[in-house]
Amino acid sequence: MRDFAIGVDVGGTNLRVAAIDANGEILQRINLTTEVRAGRDAVLEEMVSAVEALRARHASGARLAGIGFGVPGLIYMKEGKLRESPNLPGWHDYPLRDMLEQKLGTRVFLENDANAAALGEKWMGHGREVDGLVMLTLGTGVGGGIVLDGRIWHGLLGMAGELGHITIQPDGPRCGCGNHGCLEALASATAIVRMANEAVAQSSSPALQAAAAGGRPITSAIVYSAAKQGDPAAREIFRVVGWALGIALADLVNAFNLPMYVLMGGVSAAWDLFAPPMLAEVERRSFVYRAGGTRIVVSKLGADAGLFGAAYLPLSAAC
Amino acid sequence: MRDFAIGVDVGGTNLRVAAIDANGEILQRINLTTEVRAGRDAVLEEMVSAVEALRARHASGARLAGIGFGVPGLIYMKEGKLRESPNLPGWHDYPLRDMLEQKLGTRVFLENDANAAALGEKWMGHGREVDGLVMLTLGTGVGGGIVLDGRIWHGLLGMAGELGHITIQPDGPRCGCGNHGCLEALASATAIVRMANEAVAQSSSPALQAAAAGGRPITSAIVYSAAKQGDPAAREIFRVVGWALGIALADLVNAFNLPMYVLMGGVSAAWDLFAPPMLAEVERRSFVYRAGGTRIVVSKLGADAGLFGAAYLPLSAAC
Repeated sequence: MRDFAIGVDVGGTNLRVAAIDANGEILQRINLTTEVRAGRDAVLEEMVSAVEALRARHASGARLAGIGFGVPGLIYMKEGKLRESPNLPGWHDYPLRDMLEQKLGTRVFLENDANAAALGEKWMGHGREVDGLVMLTLGTGVGGGIVLDGRIWHGLLGMAGELGHITIQPDGPRCGCGNHGCLEALASATAIVRMANEAVAQSSSPALQAAAAGGRPITSAIVYSAAKQGDPAAREIFRVVGWALGIALADLVNAFNLPMYVLMGGVSAAWDLFAPPMLAEVERRSFVYRAGGTRIVVSKLGADAGLFGAAYLPLSAAC
Repeated sequence: MRDFAIGVDVGGTNLRVAAIDANGEILQRINLTTEVRAGRDAVLEEMVSAVEALRARHASGARLAGIGFGVPGLIYMKEGKLRESPNLPGWHDYPLRDMLEQKLGTRVFLENDANAAALGEKWMGHGREVDGLVMLTLGTGVGGGIVLDGRIWHGLLGMAGELGHITIQPDGPRCGCGNHGCLEALASATAIVRMANEAVAQSSSPALQAAAAGGRPITSAIVYSAAKQGDPAAREIFRVVGWALGIALADLVNAFNLPMYVLMGGVSAAWDLFAPPMLAEVERRSFVYRAGGTRIVVSKLGADAGLFGAAYLPLSAAC
């Protein structure tokens, strides 16, 4: 009887659940909306229901290896608790893994969402070709995950891979973490919107001013469109994104000398705009990169990387 | 019969050779000067003679596990060749490991000197208490070595740990590697001397101007003395050193979440001057550091760290 696992990717707005077999084939998936405002217990109930539905459907034909959850925020790995999660208020210090194991009656694995994405990409994405990779998730924030010799590198407290908080510009914009000039403060969707609003305030971008005049809040997608239409201020924003990513990647290449660095998340869709300045910075700032063999790519699995990684947690533990 | 190994630490000016047993006890050591100007073959002869003298003296009472060499520069790990070494001109692409094995008739291990120092500190220094650490060697340049789960992390091409080339200040001083604002360009002895000469040129440091007027070249030791005597420009130089080290360490803590970060090399002797600004930067820039458990220390083994690491290469391979 073949093995399968259920992966759950808990986002701030989306809840993805899928049954995936040991060959990496998705047997069935359920996409839901995370109703964070309905409260922790309601979200948990929804997660549990979706998992149980998938289990009931597939447990007759295959053996369930366990259930993996990719969760935004810092996790106490040993205790199976969320240390903090900006997107899941009220989950702090809640014994999440134990409660899920109790409700589901099976083994549960908890992992930071960016770590899960890194593992998923290693398992079924571009990472199949390599032993290790670094993942940068470029969304509302910037997350990081490090896979070395096929396994997530957790570090001392499970806090390794906080790559969104590499300092790029020591006196740069303030970051939510308390630092200034973090990668996250220069290359996240939030940073793009902040720079766009600054351009509007400075009247330096006709396209963004027109968008703002419409009354809708500016999004990174609007900035992307403006840049594609040639608006110089919008183009400059993506140059800054590429510059910041290039410095971070050069640091990571110099430190890890891994064969692959993967970008995913909403901002990675703007690759055509930020990749040229990004790659120029990496080339300039890393002789390890210049020595060859390093690939910098967009995730093959995209939004599903975390789902695959979550499912792979029990599958790889069972090996 | 107990095991022993011979470790060789090849510096640009010093050649340290020692017979060390499997318990980490130095049986005998030989300190020589590296006569780089005499040419590669002369240095090799001297190394081989010292190793043979130690072997002849100790091989009757213990089993020789092999000979380890810590060498400055980039090494092709598989081929056992130096890729490049600023301190050893003419050694480039020389089949160093094969030649040494041929001359010595025993197994030879080659390692980058900063990697060897990291491994030595892990084996017999402060690192005995932990599973992994990062080493920063602060000398003429800034080297780095990463030990994860007790082993040197080499990366794809054996070029991992090039931590002296983390970008601290994107538009900062030019580094020998082609980048600007590298850690090495801000926190090496060379950087300290450059900043001191700039202070002399700007007439901003009475103490350093007096030293320069004596006709001798300014050294980092002279800058340290001037700072200790209260010279503001000299003190500012060590503040910059601490600031740069703090940003680099915050990046490393955020990425690796290791329990220990070790500084060694000549500049680390100025700890009392640079540590306060350094620790303030790490605290400010890394919430992983603020979560606790991270130690930042000066090497316990000091200049011997590389020697211990070189000897540990054959000893740990024999296990």
